[in-house]
Amino acid sequence: MHAFIVPIRSLQDHTPLPGIIIGDIGPKMDFDQTDNGFLQLNHVRVPRENMLSRFAQVLPDGTYVKLGTAQSNYLPMVVVRVELLSGEILPILQKACVIAMRYSVIRRQSRLRPSDPEAKVLDYQTQQQKLFPQLAISYAFHFLAVSLLEFFQHSYTAILNQDFSFLPELHALSTGMKAMMSEFCTQGAEMCRRACGGHGYSKLSGLPSLVTKLSASCTYEGENTVLYLQVARFLVKSYLQTQMSPGSTPQRSLSPSVAYLTAPDLARCPAQRAADFLCPELYTTAWAHVAVRLIKDSVQHLQTLTQSGADQHEAWNQTTVIHLQAAKVHCYYVTVKGFTEALEKLENEPAIQQVLKRLCDLHAIHGILTNSGDFLHDAFLSGAQVDMARTAYLDLLRLIRKDAILLTDAFDFTDQCLNSALGCYDGNVYERLFQWAQKSPTNTQENPAYEEYIRPLLQSWRSKL
Amino acid sequence: MHAFIVPIRSLQDHTPLPGIIIGDIGPKMDFDQTDNGFLQLNHVRVPRENMLSRFAQVLPDGTYVKLGTAQSNYLPMVVVRVELLSGEILPILQKACVIAMRYSVIRRQSRLRPSDPEAKVLDYQTQQQKLFPQLAISYAFHFLAVSLLEFFQHSYTAILNQDFSFLPELHALSTGMKAMMSEFCTQGAEMCRRACGGHGYSKLSGLPSLVTKLSASCTYEGENTVLYLQVARFLVKSYLQTQMSPGSTPQRSLSPSVAYLTAPDLARCPAQRAADFLCPELYTTAWAHVAVRLIKDSVQHLQTLTQSGADQHEAWNQTTVIHLQAAKVHCYYVTVKGFTEALEKLENEPAIQQVLKRLCDLHAIHGILTNSGDFLHDAFLSGAQVDMARTAYLDLLRLIRKDAILLTDAFDFTDQCLNSALGCYDGNVYERLFQWAQKSPTNTQENPAYEEYIRPLLQSWRSKL
Repeated sequence: MHAFIVPIRSLQDHTPLPGIIIGDIGPKMDFDQTDNGFLQLNHVRVPRENMLSRFAQVLPDGTYVKLGTAQSNYLPMVVVRVELLSGEILPILQKACVIAMRYSVIRRQSRLRPSDPEAKVLDYQTQQQKLFPQLAISYAFHFLAVSLLEFFQHSYTAILNQDFSFLPELHALSTGMKAMMSEFCTQGAEMCRRACGGHGYSKLSGLPSLVTKLSASCTYEGENTVLYLQVARFLVKSYLQTQMSPGSTPQRSLSPSVAYLTAPDLARCPAQRAADFLCPELYTTAWAHVAVRLIKDSVQHLQTLTQSGADQHEAWNQTTVIHLQAAKVHCYYVTVKGFTEALEKLENEPAIQQVLKRLCDLHAIHGILTNSGDFLHDAFLSGAQVDMARTAYLDLLRLIRKDAILLTDAFDFTDQCLNSALGCYDGNVYERLFQWAQKSPTNTQENPAYEEYIRPLLQSWRSKL
Repeated sequence: MHAFIVPIRSLQDHTPLPGIIIGDIGPKMDFDQTDNGFLQLNHVRVPRENMLSRFAQVLPDGTYVKLGTAQSNYLPMVVVRVELLSGEILPILQKACVIAMRYSVIRRQSRLRPSDPEAKVLDYQTQQQKLFPQLAISYAFHFLAVSLLEFFQHSYTAILNQDFSFLPELHALSTGMKAMMSEFCTQGAEMCRRACGGHGYSKLSGLPSLVTKLSASCTYEGENTVLYLQVARFLVKSYLQTQMSPGSTPQRSLSPSVAYLTAPDLARCPAQRAADFLCPELYTTAWAHVAVRLIKDSVQHLQTLTQSGADQHEAWNQTTVIHLQAAKVHCYYVTVKGFTEALEKLENEPAIQQVLKRLCDLHAIHGILTNSGDFLHDAFLSGAQVDMARTAYLDLLRLIRKDAILLTDAFDFTDQCLNSALGCYDGNVYERLFQWAQKSPTNTQENPAYEEYIRPLLQSWRSKL
């Protein structure tokens, strides 16, 4: 795969060049202001100098010269994905969190007990369960995006010095994180939207457009299922690498994100009470254990099929659902591990560290509860331990409650940037909703439907009265 | 709660009546053609005869007369919800299934093995995993909506004869099914949309508006979390009823949907191989087992809290997350049970029964895999049995593949009704997409942006060349 810049329009009058047919693909769910075109090329020559040729060139005589490795062709995609994560996808989830959280301390509904005044909806356990995991994952992704960017810059410097050894890890990480972030951010923003009830359906909340923007990210720059399966291939390869007997082939060292494949493993989780689940080492090990088990399982399914006569393609195609599961758990592990590493760097800020550790704990435990089957499968966790994790989780919701607003204020979005009647810093939700609704065309313009349909209808009713 | 018809506009000229301020609430995510208003009432009297008074009346002298039970006031809501399920929510998921399935046998991408031509995307296991559970649940909900409607009509006849005994069951069923259907249909339609890749983001696919319409249904006519918690209260009540010693109070018989609370239960699932999971009795019992365990668990959490001094409201509020989990599993059980009952009625149509049984099996097993933690928790299923269920599931995907298109054709939507370039019966996806895109305003109108921005830009570039 190589990238070219293809001239499609005349620089004189902007008309399509000979042999080129272009047009707009029509209305979309969002991004209507963004060009998305269809393109047909008929006998179009791309000038040689329009090839992006840092890692491969075509000389004037037609000779093809390779300067990088096979994987360096992926580099432009890696750049796009790394940019996408921190620059586009994540801030949208963070905005949705700010809006939903601020609205949830203004909106009151029902009573916690009959004698009380109506309660803020954020004081309900079910509302906390909707929003706090999204807040936690926003922070998890924030720290991950920062470290991914650092790793990218480090790798890129190496690449410019002809050292391509980081590329497989960079490719696997950016691919997996693009898939996971877009999936979880979309789901999380939609959860924030629904947590605002009917008002989350109003465009004045700002939430609908955040959700539809994110939905697109699950498909563009690599469809998520395809990306997870690329991660799965990397995991299978890495696992097989650990199985080679030392010395049989020149052993490459394992990429850091899969170093857990050879780390010491426990057969049973040592947790004895709910508080034990608040230990980063305990839950990181638990996630690594499950990831190893699922990767091993997926490789064994592959091998069983090939041993029973299937060729490698058939074996792969019949096990993609299993590979997908392994890749997703691996990605979750990466976010948990990344969050704990970020916490360690905060040891000089104990107050901040304490608050963020609760989010890290919540992120890890919420994932365990959502995927409890994976942890119970080989009895790594017992049913009683899952109940302990749930107790720890419910306690965390209560503890995070008091810092929730500050944790969203910390994202530091201006009112203008949020563009939401529900999410303004001053909390004047209802006044603003009412003012903004007044400006709606249906309230300011004459209603042609009235003249056309309603008046004649009323007249006919009146004549019958 | 009582329902009134409140006159808000003059029958003469359609202006708001005295004391009434009304307006539009502004732009929404969809339903822009549907009126949603804000309303302020100031000293407005509603005429006595505007009360819906089948089950409660106010006499001219002001006397209040109750004709039904406390729950008969819920009847209008029950009617709305029953109508909603079969008339609005479900057909939207079915349409999304038709569109995605038809597109998936036209769209080809990648190769199953390098020597093959590009494969239809529906032949990929991961695509089948996305779509077939949605197809299965469409049928599950179809049969459930039919039986719910029958039960409603039966109950309503009884109610007109002053027999209100079916009301608690009717209320619990319609509440739970409204929550579950809207939740699963929204998720399913979004899955169908994403399964169409970039084209699912085009409005020409018809999918975006189906998804946004469904999202709204998770909130209106009862917000889903609130509804699930109403189901949970019904479950707690029903469970406590089974715990009363016979004779201590006049024992009401258990509602049919929770009869499993007193049915014989197994401690371990007897499945010994993958094919055992294709037995409706086996998986219905499995779902009942998990529902009983979770309901019992939620009641025990309530009781533990009250015994340690919490009042009933506090105890409830601290356990809502646990109740929610029980209510959702109960609702899933209801759909599995309903599907198996519908199958039994098809014994004179063995060919149809066989095809639909695969969907029923898939629905039940897909739910087991998605919630495997609930089944592994008390070792009702072992890890090895979950793997058997997964094998059965992957086999089913392969078997359902050959009937998939016929199963969506059977919904019998016309092309006009689907209004989708991807979902037409003739399969001319790309021709139609191209034709429809041509009609897009961006392709037919003059582009004012060109004159305003692009031409001056080009001119300035040219002057620098």
